[in-house]
Amino acid sequence: MSEEFEKKFYPRVSVKEVEEGSTLSPKFDDKGLIPCITSDFKTKEVLMVGYMNAEALTKTIENAEAYYFSRSRQKVWHKGATSGLTQTVKEIRVDDDQDSIWLSVEIGGSGASCHVGYRSCFYRSIPIKSKVTQDLKLKWEEKNKVFDPIEVYGNTPNPTKL
Amino acid sequence: MSEEFEKKFYPRVSVKEVEEGSTLSPKFDDKGLIPCITSDFKTKEVLMVGYMNAEALTKTIENAEAYYFSRSRQKVWHKGATSGLTQTVKEIRVDDDQDSIWLSVEIGGSGASCHVGYRSCFYRSIPIKSKVTQDLKLKWEEKNKVFDPIEVYGNTPNPTKL
Repeated sequence: MSEEFEKKFYPRVSVKEVEEGSTLSPKFDDKGLIPCITSDFKTKEVLMVGYMNAEALTKTIENAEAYYFSRSRQKVWHKGATSGLTQTVKEIRVDDDQDSIWLSVEIGGSGASCHVGYRSCFYRSIPIKSKVTQDLKLKWEEKNKVFDPIEVYGNTPNPTKL
Repeated sequence: MSEEFEKKFYPRVSVKEVEEGSTLSPKFDDKGLIPCITSDFKTKEVLMVGYMNAEALTKTIENAEAYYFSRSRQKVWHKGATSGLTQTVKEIRVDDDQDSIWLSVEIGGSGASCHVGYRSCFYRSIPIKSKVTQDLKLKWEEKNKVFDPIEVYGNTPNPTKL
């Protein structure tokens, strides 16, 4: 299924063309996925890291709304379909070797991207220059959740896996 | 080798602790790696996506300089060791399910992060609302290289793989 979508992209014919050319030749990994960073178009804050298969990337480019591939549910996922917090894509970038995507987005409502209820998924920091041991403590960078995940997602299974 | 470093982190005991706790329990994938987004501390521009194993993450936290795991060379890599363009880490964040890292960094010299010679690895954009076909053309967002890769890297093998 996703192979059909992979054929829409220009083949990876040479390192020179991939790095210095203007053709789009994304590199999907052995699971058919490419990582995608999503940041807020206005504040530039990094909101989340997701994965896309060829179908999700195609739909994101064509519709200017973010689609990802859910690894826990193993299917293409229109971000915001459940929560209403869709991501309107303002810019899409691709990196030098074309194995990562960067989306800049605008989000309606609470502006949240994180299923735990925070604005960004990156709500905790790791103290730098700390000795790494099991006693290391993370620091909270967002004090309050912007929505209640129980209210929004109800009994939907939590995507976080151990 | 990297297993020894993995034991320095708190074990992933529950989804609640991983998402809502203050213990650091990064999830390394089946290759022992975790993706890392690196952005410029001042401009907030996304510069690159790299990968870390437990050793690279430990060294990054403890030394406040960016270390990655080079997938092409299969070893821990102190960013800037060849080019001089080391990344001083100002902040490290971890996401909700702790399977991604976000570094905010300052870079000396030309300020570049990209082995092709551009400031950011994301120097090209994909035009949104375009029909995805092999004729799609990328747009250049950075006009000029900030360093000459031949001068800096000489005959070092190019890390980009097809």
